[in-house]
This record gives sequence, structure tokens and C-alpha cells, in this order.
Amino acid sequence: MDAIDKQPIRNPPVNLQEKLTKFSEHWSPKIVAQMNDYHFKLAKVHGEFVWHDHPETDEVFLVIQGKLDIHFRDGKVSLSAGEMYVVPKGVEHKPVAESECHILLIEPAGTVNTGDVVNEKTAPKDIWI
Amino acid sequence: MDAIDKQPIRNPPVNLQEKLTKFSEHWSPKIVAQMNDYHFKLAKVHGEFVWHDHPETDEVFLVIQGKLDIHFRDGKVSLSAGEMYVVPKGVEHKPVAESECHILLIEPAGTVNTGDVVNEKTAPKDIWI
Repeated sequence: MDAIDKQPIRNPPVNLQEKLTKFSEHWSPKIVAQMNDYHFKLAKVHGEFVWHDHPETDEVFLVIQGKLDIHFRDGKVSLSAGEMYVVPKGVEHKPVAESECHILLIEPAGTVNTGDVVNEKTAPKDIWI
Repeated sequence: MDAIDKQPIRNPPVNLQEKLTKFSEHWSPKIVAQMNDYHFKLAKVHGEFVWHDHPETDEVFLVIQGKLDIHFRDGKVSLSAGEMYVVPKGVEHKPVAESECHILLIEPAGTVNTGDVVNEKTAPKDIWI
């Protein structure tokens, strides 16, 4: 494999704050990077999401700004900026943000934001910004 | 599957700044979280790392504090705090930090920090903090 094959055109770094200026809607994750078959998605959230789980995958939440509660059927965890949490696969959870909160989600490409639940909060897949 | 099977003991959130207080050595990533078969690792870096690549996987760098240059054979990218970069699999790279820099690395569990190169900067695997 020669240098051209190995080294495609270099992408610029992904600046998370700059990407966050590109959208304003809530509960609609936007893809900003791909690592192998995983997507990194930014989302702005406010209010209550729906109870759901992802039967096939863990899901990572990293809070960039604000506070996020992740409710479980047996309790909750509260995340502040600079904190991350791994929701294990198959565990029902409901994210809640009392004020607008900005988060980075990491999960396999194609993961639906509402898991097995499909409703008005189900976001279209694969929107890159 | 009953509730006990589905919901293991809840881990606390991972506070990245708090985890960073737990070590001081450079170029020695510490695992702070696992998502499926991927590890999230914090590292403090300063100076030049070695040229290496990871033939089997992409690798994500997210800068938490300071600045990181990632050199490639045909150029470099410069990352500041809040910026991330995906180094494609198989692409030779050399991280360089002129001042101490704190980063979050995301890559498959078992990925060796120096890739196919083994030298004095090769870190022991799987150190959790």
C-alpha cells in the first residue's frame, strides 16, 4: 500500500463548541466523527426524554455543558460538565435535563436514539454536521 | 431476565478532572471506562511520542487541556482543548505536546499505545484508575 492509499485527505480537527453552533434543536443527535463502526454525536437536550433501552449496545454520555440526569428504573445518576457515564446495553434509561444541556454521545453507527421505542422523539439516522 | 440481572450495581459517573488527579506520569494511558469492547483512557503527555500506527483500528484523541500536535508523514494536525481527531487505522502518526497536555483516548480494549512498535514508551495494558 503506498502513501496515497494509506493517507487519505486529512480531515480538520472536530471542534465540539464550533459544531454545537450549527444546530439548536433538542434531542436530535448530530454525527461529528466516526471511529471504526462507532459514531460520535453531539446533542442539545432539554426536558425529559423517553424511557428506552439499547438491547445490543452500551451507550456513552459525556456532558460538555450543563447537567444531565440519567434515570434508571432503580435510581438515577447526575452528570455535570466533564463527567461521563456508560449506560449498559439492555438497561432502561431516561435522560432528563432541567436546563439545556450539551452532550457527546458515543455508540455504534445506526443506533437509534430512542432504542426499541419509536415515537416523536425518534431522530432521523445519520445526520452529519 | 429480571430486574436484578438487567441492572447491575450502578457505577458512579466518571469525572475526568478527578481521574486526572490520580496519576502524573506521561505517555501512560489509564482506563476510566469501557463501552462494549472499547476503552476510554486518560493520558498526560509531554514531549514527543514515537512514530507508530494501529493496523487494525482507528484511534480517537480528545484534548481536555493543553495542545496536542499529531504528526503524519505528510503533515500534522493541531488540537486544542475541546477538539477531537480520529486517526485512521494503519496511518503512521506521532503525537507531540510542547507543554503538558491531557487527553482522552478511545480505542478497542487491548490496543497498545505504541501500536506495532515496542519500546520504552510501550505502556502496560489495562491499567484502570
